[in-house]
Amino acid sequence: MNQNYIKPDNWSIIEEGFDECRVKSSESLFSIGNGAMGQRANFEETYSGASFQGSYIAGVYYPDKTRVGWWKNGYPEYFAKVLNAPNWIGINVLVNGVEFDLNTCTDILDYKRELNMKEGWLARNFTATLPNKITIKVATKRFLSLSHDELGAIEYQVTPLNSAAEIIYQPYLDSGITNEDSNWDDAFWNTQHVSKENNQAFIEAHTMKTNFHTCTFMQSECFVNSAKNEAFTEIHQTETKVSFSYSAEIKQNETFTIHKFGGYVVDRNHAKNELLSAAKEVLAIAKEKGFNVLLEDQKEAWATIWNMADITIEGDVKAQQGIRFNIFQLNQTYLGKDSTLNIGPKGFTGEKYGGSTYWDTEAYCIPFYMATKNQEVARNLLTYRYNQLDRAIENAKKLGFTNGAALYPMVTMNGEECHNEWEITFEEIHRNGAIAFAIYNYHRFTGDYSYIPEKGLEVLIGIARFWQQRATYSDAKKEYVILGVTGPNEYENNVNNNWYTNYTAQWCIKYALGNLEKVKSEFPSDYLRISQKTKISSEELEKWKAVADTMHFPYSEEHQVYLQQEGFLDKELVTVKKLATEHRPINQKWSWDRILRSPYIKQADVLQGFYFFEDEFTTKELKKHFDFYEPYTVHESSLSPCVHSIQAAKLDRMDQAYTFYLRTSRLDLDDYNHEVEEGLHITSMAGTWMSIVEGFGGMRVKNDVISFEPRIPSQWKSYSFKVNFRNQVIKVNVFQNEASFELIEGEELSILVNDKLVRVNSKKLVTV
Amino acid sequence: MNQNYIKPDNWSIIEEGFDECRVKSSESLFSIGNGAMGQRANFEETYSGASFQGSYIAGVYYPDKTRVGWWKNGYPEYFAKVLNAPNWIGINVLVNGVEFDLNTCTDILDYKRELNMKEGWLARNFTATLPNKITIKVATKRFLSLSHDELGAIEYQVTPLNSAAEIIYQPYLDSGITNEDSNWDDAFWNTQHVSKENNQAFIEAHTMKTNFHTCTFMQSECFVNSAKNEAFTEIHQTETKVSFSYSAEIKQNETFTIHKFGGYVVDRNHAKNELLSAAKEVLAIAKEKGFNVLLEDQKEAWATIWNMADITIEGDVKAQQGIRFNIFQLNQTYLGKDSTLNIGPKGFTGEKYGGSTYWDTEAYCIPFYMATKNQEVARNLLTYRYNQLDRAIENAKKLGFTNGAALYPMVTMNGEECHNEWEITFEEIHRNGAIAFAIYNYHRFTGDYSYIPEKGLEVLIGIARFWQQRATYSDAKKEYVILGVTGPNEYENNVNNNWYTNYTAQWCIKYALGNLEKVKSEFPSDYLRISQKTKISSEELEKWKAVADTMHFPYSEEHQVYLQQEGFLDKELVTVKKLATEHRPINQKWSWDRILRSPYIKQADVLQGFYFFEDEFTTKELKKHFDFYEPYTVHESSLSPCVHSIQAAKLDRMDQAYTFYLRTSRLDLDDYNHEVEEGLHITSMAGTWMSIVEGFGGMRVKNDVISFEPRIPSQWKSYSFKVNFRNQVIKVNVFQNEASFELIEGEELSILVNDKLVRVNSKKLVTV
Repeated sequence: MNQNYIKPDNWSIIEEGFDECRVKSSESLFSIGNGAMGQRANFEETYSGASFQGSYIAGVYYPDKTRVGWWKNGYPEYFAKVLNAPNWIGINVLVNGVEFDLNTCTDILDYKRELNMKEGWLARNFTATLPNKITIKVATKRFLSLSHDELGAIEYQVTPLNSAAEIIYQPYLDSGITNEDSNWDDAFWNTQHVSKENNQAFIEAHTMKTNFHTCTFMQSECFVNSAKNEAFTEIHQTETKVSFSYSAEIKQNETFTIHKFGGYVVDRNHAKNELLSAAKEVLAIAKEKGFNVLLEDQKEAWATIWNMADITIEGDVKAQQGIRFNIFQLNQTYLGKDSTLNIGPKGFTGEKYGGSTYWDTEAYCIPFYMATKNQEVARNLLTYRYNQLDRAIENAKKLGFTNGAALYPMVTMNGEECHNEWEITFEEIHRNGAIAFAIYNYHRFTGDYSYIPEKGLEVLIGIARFWQQRATYSDAKKEYVILGVTGPNEYENNVNNNWYTNYTAQWCIKYALGNLEKVKSEFPSDYLRISQKTKISSEELEKWKAVADTMHFPYSEEHQVYLQQEGFLDKELVTVKKLATEHRPINQKWSWDRILRSPYIKQADVLQGFYFFEDEFTTKELKKHFDFYEPYTVHESSLSPCVHSIQAAKLDRMDQAYTFYLRTSRLDLDDYNHEVEEGLHITSMAGTWMSIVEGFGGMRVKNDVISFEPRIPSQWKSYSFKVNFRNQVIKVNVFQNEASFELIEGEELSILVNDKLVRVNSKKLVTV
Repeated sequence: MNQNYIKPDNWSIIEEGFDECRVKSSESLFSIGNGAMGQRANFEETYSGASFQGSYIAGVYYPDKTRVGWWKNGYPEYFAKVLNAPNWIGINVLVNGVEFDLNTCTDILDYKRELNMKEGWLARNFTATLPNKITIKVATKRFLSLSHDELGAIEYQVTPLNSAAEIIYQPYLDSGITNEDSNWDDAFWNTQHVSKENNQAFIEAHTMKTNFHTCTFMQSECFVNSAKNEAFTEIHQTETKVSFSYSAEIKQNETFTIHKFGGYVVDRNHAKNELLSAAKEVLAIAKEKGFNVLLEDQKEAWATIWNMADITIEGDVKAQQGIRFNIFQLNQTYLGKDSTLNIGPKGFTGEKYGGSTYWDTEAYCIPFYMATKNQEVARNLLTYRYNQLDRAIENAKKLGFTNGAALYPMVTMNGEECHNEWEITFEEIHRNGAIAFAIYNYHRFTGDYSYIPEKGLEVLIGIARFWQQRATYSDAKKEYVILGVTGPNEYENNVNNNWYTNYTAQWCIKYALGNLEKVKSEFPSDYLRISQKTKISSEELEKWKAVADTMHFPYSEEHQVYLQQEGFLDKELVTVKKLATEHRPINQKWSWDRILRSPYIKQADVLQGFYFFEDEFTTKELKKHFDFYEPYTVHESSLSPCVHSIQAAKLDRMDQAYTFYLRTSRLDLDDYNHEVEEGLHITSMAGTWMSIVEGFGGMRVKNDVISFEPRIPSQWKSYSFKVNFRNQVIKVNVFQNEASFELIEGEELSILVNDKLVRVNSKKLVTV
């Protein structure tokens, strides 16, 4: 493990010293993004060592031809790949004719990289000696603008320290790039036109197959010390690359600076034939504002985000750094402006997994966005699924379902399934439940029912239809069973009667039925529209009811717990603690069959149901199930510790809750799984936020009232967070012996604290 | 379906008329082989239409890098591919300078292709008009010699019919070939040396990775009418090809003939540095004997095979043709001379599936070879597995098993697993049972116990150890369970307590225990050697016993049948008959999850157990289980109908038995599944033989006595077969109202006919 590599700091991610073995993992950790685009922290200058180049544009993807060993009917023909986009950050640096490359320097001193989360920029500062013995001081700063989200800016400074030197900057654009994660080494981009105009250059390129048209652009200006420098400009141009050359004779201890602006415009936001002019407009802004003004804008924009989303922790710098890193990355990935975008599992930090949307969004991310942003953001995430309902119906049809039954894809970019493992793609169907639950959760939290008659009910009908058809009446059991599924615990495949899936199916049908009733009586014109469109009939609803009313739930009388699935008790029930460490993690040490027949649980499964449907079970029942299942849980999914942390807190087991919290909050910073170089675990970061707010803070919504049961780990002095509850912002401060509640926005509000009603208003701090 | 394409004929496979759409499927159907090599029926002359080129050398394979979508621990790194070998059959034909190519001919008349199974040769006869308006008569004949199994011979004759013409033959060798079935388009061959000497040419090439060294060779001579012709010889040579050119001016109605001899020598049989001289020795035989003498040898060798293996059917030409096709192909594929070879699922007729050895060998092929050949052949097949025991132990170790537990691979070439679907590779473990059963079956049939102390017992110990470790004690059931398996019915994956698997596991352990006892008392020195080598202890045997004595078998009291697996009765039990035809075959129409949760059975599963362990169940029990399971069976495996045919016959349902028989015997000839172009279903052909001998003939061995219960389909006049039982050959003739038994080899023998003891001897025909 990597636990002391990143320097503890309240607001920044800091790396000190240059370690070539860490380049790829630091490229992930120091990634930057602005919701519309993002990039790994690749160096601007040439680097000949091992590196993973990645720059990504939100919503621009490539359908890579599926690669499987053994084809199964129903597999999608392609897998939507997150797409490495043309490089606009590159600046070759020549010092007396020698290319500056950290991999060939004879000496690198005082190397420091900083990702400043408070202000939203990435910097490097160091001194390096080139093979020609020239020592230079290098200072770089880069950010992707939140205010102008098609624009990024770089400041690159070189100061020769031991002699005068000719410094040449060669800023370039390059569309001759590849994806690390490609099935068949296809070319993903087709470059149409490379052009330049004064100090600007443009590459127009479109993606193969999906035909997204883009224009990548750049513009640079140079300074010697603070004076603008009209350096000689030479141009090199090939079919996929254009570079300028700015050279200057720099005296010892003088500084040569380049400001490079760049970014992308895409036909998702502009007309195809207006991309070049759109790019020029963006560059006009850059020219007008300049690097420093844009940087001030950036600080301000991040201050606004932090003002609402920040969580402070006193007395534990690493915990503070961890939670801020999670909140920062979530905001870099998705800002909720665009209902055609979603929260990719690796955001803009890597390519693994492909697709952009998993059930992670509904199960883990929506609560974070609901509480820290305007409710429109969560509504956009719901609308994303509403807009893809037709494709979910199409997807279900491919698997033999009829009559508008909808199965949302396991992994998608545009609504079509793109995953291809039968036990996941066809069987991990509980994802449909999370999508319905998110509608419930949105209504519960925001109080905004309008989404349901307008859009949500159609989704609920499609999902309920799926569950009704997917259940099988067992003559042997005289109940409905659901055969052949994979639950949230992906260490079981093709099991029968996964309790979580069956419970979710029942809940979805009941919830759909309830909303049909409510919309029918309260929104009759919506009801008319929807019932005509979906051709719902009372006969069909009877079938739904039959399934919901007589669903089978495997249960153990002996243990008084619901069984994760049929036959769970036939396993060899040895707890994880008794498993020798050489067997861990089992997903790296064991063959798949051994994992499947073991009792070991990858992530919350029955307990995921107890998390979602908490109100339907007593704390005593939770305790029984937690005590039964957690000891078999190996937490080998990044999504596992957060749910367990929340439940441990609820059971007042704060030591355990804190242990789980640490595991989720610094997963990437401390690289627990030795895989951070592939990218960050973006969606599980929202789980970390939940661990504090729902776990330690005990936040819930009960009958339209927001409720808290604050607890605090003994290791902390205090922590605080804010919640936007129905356009009123409450700030919660939790100390070891008390908690205070303050209304930051809004007039007055009744809240529940430890189940007692308390009134808070904008004038007074209520302490409990 | 294709049911009238192949002309009915007792001894030949005949195609009349040239159909370019049938070229690939006929290339499969007319394949020839001699156990050491084989080839698809590709044309000698250039053919520019769609074709699938294939020439294969037994035991020469390539480890193709595994291709999967999602890697699982324990997957093998490569898949052993059957390897298309250098082409030695090619003869370009030029007629007045125009290349003869059936795809460009303006007219093709009287086209007839014949695979003469009685004599073991392939011929084509037709008249074709070339684009230059020259009409030629073509007659070709080709065979792979059984007497000299490194040698093949071709006679190619052209007679210009409408004018004199210059005919040029260009016989060639070509190692610039590829595999149809390649994962990554690797080059599989490296050509080292191309050479020629007089009228002989040689290509020395070795396979990549596996480094099999081969020499492909040829030698030709030409005749005008019957006179040897010293035609001009021109030579073309490239890095991977060598061709000669024989030209002659041929008068109208005269015939120009080329005899081309060729084949392979391989370092599996010769020293690496002696391949060239070995090739010359083979060609010396060809020169000495010439085409016609070799052809006479061929007829004689096939006559010897047919004398023992033939099954005659009177009154049903298509059934006669079908069974002979099956027997012919089995003998072309494997002759039992070499214990390092096995019976590939497509033999030498295609590349699909890869590997050479599946459980098909033990479950379906061994009975055929035992009854129609010397017992050494079956013993060689058993020895093949004995020689791979170490690798089976290695394979089990990779999956977490210890102490010499052995899991034989699902698919293999050299003993290493090469398949990569977790639900098959890791879970279709019943294959281990078939390997143990084959030892029992061999001893039962041949009476040769010596194999067990010498070799078999070690295999049985490895297998018993595997089952003991693979079983799990269920505290809930107080019995041993076997979790997470795929049974013979591959339309169920990762099920618990598949009855067939559990029963087989129990049987294997008991059989191993029994043989340990017997070897201990009767072969003490073998016992000492084996017990020292395997370190077997009485404590370990107690563990085996515990598993065998308290194995769980799912059972339905209501239906009085063993359940195929836990939970089978929860399925929607709609019989196949009620399934609309648009859903069939389900493996092409349904997604995998739908197949898995359906009750439909791909091939005998519980009934496979009733087939193997027939003596342990009553006919009444068989009937109950047959009536319960067969109605859910879709027979979508080529291995399914034969077992059901045998059981239907036993239950005296001859109409049903005959229907199943037809389905198995003409599967390829009538191309039921529209896939014959990929190659033939070689191993299931042995099942066809079983359908007649064990099904209709009712052959069994009961306490060292061979037994028959003859039945005959109403569609037939009579049928006959021979069985080599312990070096005595019995000929069985079955008519509609009687059956006769004749001892062809041996002095006198007691047999059971319908459970009555009858003595047969060499002098008299016993009629019952």
